[in-house]
Amino acid sequence: MQAEDLILISVDDHLIEPPDLFAGRLPARFADAAPRVVRRPDGSDVWTFNGAVIPNIGLNAVAGRPKEEYGVEPTAFEEMRPGCYDIHERVRDMSAGGVLGSMCFPSFPGFSARVFAAAADKDLALSVVRAYNDWHLDEWCGSYPDRFIPMALPVLWDPELAAAEVRRVAAKGCHSLTFTENPAALGLPSFHDEHWDPLWQALVDEDVVLSIHLGSSGKLSVTAPDAPVDVMITLQPMNICQAAADLLWSRVLKKFPGIRIALSEGGTGWIPYFLDRVDRTYDMHRRWTGQDFGGRLPSEVFREHFLTCFIADPVGIQLRGLIGLDNIAWECDYPHSDSSWPYAAEELAEAAAGVPDAELNRMSFENAMRWYSFDPFAYRARERSTVGALRAEEAGRDVSTRSYDSGRFVRSGTGVELGSLVEQVTA
Amino acid sequence: MQAEDLILISVDDHLIEPPDLFAGRLPARFADAAPRVVRRPDGSDVWTFNGAVIPNIGLNAVAGRPKEEYGVEPTAFEEMRPGCYDIHERVRDMSAGGVLGSMCFPSFPGFSARVFAAAADKDLALSVVRAYNDWHLDEWCGSYPDRFIPMALPVLWDPELAAAEVRRVAAKGCHSLTFTENPAALGLPSFHDEHWDPLWQALVDEDVVLSIHLGSSGKLSVTAPDAPVDVMITLQPMNICQAAADLLWSRVLKKFPGIRIALSEGGTGWIPYFLDRVDRTYDMHRRWTGQDFGGRLPSEVFREHFLTCFIADPVGIQLRGLIGLDNIAWECDYPHSDSSWPYAAEELAEAAAGVPDAELNRMSFENAMRWYSFDPFAYRARERSTVGALRAEEAGRDVSTRSYDSGRFVRSGTGVELGSLVEQVTA
Repeated sequence: MQAEDLILISVDDHLIEPPDLFAGRLPARFADAAPRVVRRPDGSDVWTFNGAVIPNIGLNAVAGRPKEEYGVEPTAFEEMRPGCYDIHERVRDMSAGGVLGSMCFPSFPGFSARVFAAAADKDLALSVVRAYNDWHLDEWCGSYPDRFIPMALPVLWDPELAAAEVRRVAAKGCHSLTFTENPAALGLPSFHDEHWDPLWQALVDEDVVLSIHLGSSGKLSVTAPDAPVDVMITLQPMNICQAAADLLWSRVLKKFPGIRIALSEGGTGWIPYFLDRVDRTYDMHRRWTGQDFGGRLPSEVFREHFLTCFIADPVGIQLRGLIGLDNIAWECDYPHSDSSWPYAAEELAEAAAGVPDAELNRMSFENAMRWYSFDPFAYRARERSTVGALRAEEAGRDVSTRSYDSGRFVRSGTGVELGSLVEQVTA
Repeated sequence: MQAEDLILISVDDHLIEPPDLFAGRLPARFADAAPRVVRRPDGSDVWTFNGAVIPNIGLNAVAGRPKEEYGVEPTAFEEMRPGCYDIHERVRDMSAGGVLGSMCFPSFPGFSARVFAAAADKDLALSVVRAYNDWHLDEWCGSYPDRFIPMALPVLWDPELAAAEVRRVAAKGCHSLTFTENPAALGLPSFHDEHWDPLWQALVDEDVVLSIHLGSSGKLSVTAPDAPVDVMITLQPMNICQAAADLLWSRVLKKFPGIRIALSEGGTGWIPYFLDRVDRTYDMHRRWTGQDFGGRLPSEVFREHFLTCFIADPVGIQLRGLIGLDNIAWECDYPHSDSSWPYAAEELAEAAAGVPDAELNRMSFENAMRWYSFDPFAYRARERSTVGALRAEEAGRDVSTRSYDSGRFVRSGTGVELGSLVEQVTA
């Protein structure tokens, strides 16, 4: 298929929270405690909440920036492309890139909203989570219901409250919950604990997908403090295999057969190996480990529960039949540094050369629609939804890479080590 | 190719050290401090050294045992198949399984001999390492030079001594050094530190392969203490991707272009994804991370330095062209629980159905010979080296699974959790 004829729904993008996100959304008694943006002496904008200071990391908002200016330095809003934080600019960028639909993960709260959960005042924490979700559903997604898959933050500290929030947002049309890939790594009960059962039940009842994004354990994949940063960049996606194995062998899938999980930004090319491995593990070891999937293989169980996601993954496309044609969805990853926006359509068309149209459509948009109960065509004709049609709507928009350098932004230079990155990210 | 026509050299097997290994091999002043086998009240045999007690874990010596009796309990020598620890019985088991050649990793010292390195008396530690290496080269491999790829333990605490030991064993014909996949995880300088340069230089000078086995960081891949043990079993091989990334992006390959590394028991099916990932990481990020491979891609550099290894990996065989036909070697993993001995030949023949003979030969034995400077045909005619020919020599040998249960061995039963395993393994 030609790039212009693709229809693209991305199941993994990111939004940079705008400074006015919480304005008018919290009870008056929390006015002083609300998360807010502060400009630091170095000119960067940071979010503050509950004593924590969370910079907007440059690498998380590099859309449109020349690769020479990628880096991990904290940055200011005016150094970002406005599509990072402005919904109207975002939609225009999506159209210019040919992207019909998008699901946007949070930035400063962390993928599992652990920044909010850390507040000792749980009334405050709950108000902030709900305010964020309402903003995300009503403002971000609600402004363009044909363009966004709604996603909610979890209530991380209380499974009953978490379940209630899932039911509340589901009533507003939200079928995706962002969550951590490993609650045990955050000091919470693991996936193997009954603790979470009320949440799993709510997800099943409300047809909500548990979307676990790489890096959502709160830990980077670090081999050594002096390792080059390239090591971490390489390992992050495949590291989600830990969550895949953790959940596949857990009691969760056995007790909640309706639960569905997305391995967001985890890549797909390694999945066929992984499925062989789990089937062989089952064959060689189940007699002493006590695993029991009835008459089925772990790989079959995997395909019933897991959506795998890729940005650019020629091996995964080649092996799509071994992964499962219903289990693969494309991602854009705008505005992160792994995205090929605005040329992601061309990247996908090239990687999928020779793939039958019907199969490519499943990976590029149909699976995303079904898994996330999302129907853009209720609002927009399909013929107006292709890459070519969307781009025509934004013909003339400047999508060339340009420097957003205000004079302050400094490249990290050579020899960036993991230790320094971890320090900056977690400072 | 039919199973009987294969020639098999395994680049990853394991030996259980026999109780008399050190007899007569240490200076008299170390007689009391030598590693020794002790029978515990529960009937199991354990190695003791330097205050540490290291059980012979049942799961590491299950060759010939019914799968119902796999488990992690400590075991006794008479509960193991003698091929685990007796060189003559081992060779007969290899022949009965059709396996021509084998490289045997250590058991109780740990893959990087960290048990020996822990001794405060470094003269003692060095004597023990050298005694082990001499035993391995002279007794274990030396008894059947046509059947074993010699492998040495490292001197982990001193790079100059480590280099000297590499040169000493190389002079005796040894071209493989077992090592840790992550020295930083053991509290040592990382792969990114100049500390190890004398060792790397010796490896290059003497044409010795750095063989890093999964699990050699001293850490199991544990998601949560209450995770089922199946999680760890699934993740162990692919976890070596961390070492692959750590070394690929390190200064080691740039400063020592002759160095060669084997990712032992790491599997192969995930490698094509990994190579795509490192090339994309290089393309997207090198301008700010400062990585520089000259005009080459990271995937090309990988193929110059890394040998990937598989037990049973149909996806890896299918994708052999993307991995590199010179970069794949077969493993038997006798007597561990992931081995299909005595039917590993049939398993490989089935997985490689349709693969041209010349390509299968490279994976089943030719690459092993070249990477490890091993030539069994200097001792044994090729026509006497096939699976069929070797099996004919041991026709009638009992290789059926049988219970080695002395009445004491207890199956772990259902619901084995990672925490309990870690406790037993590290107790």
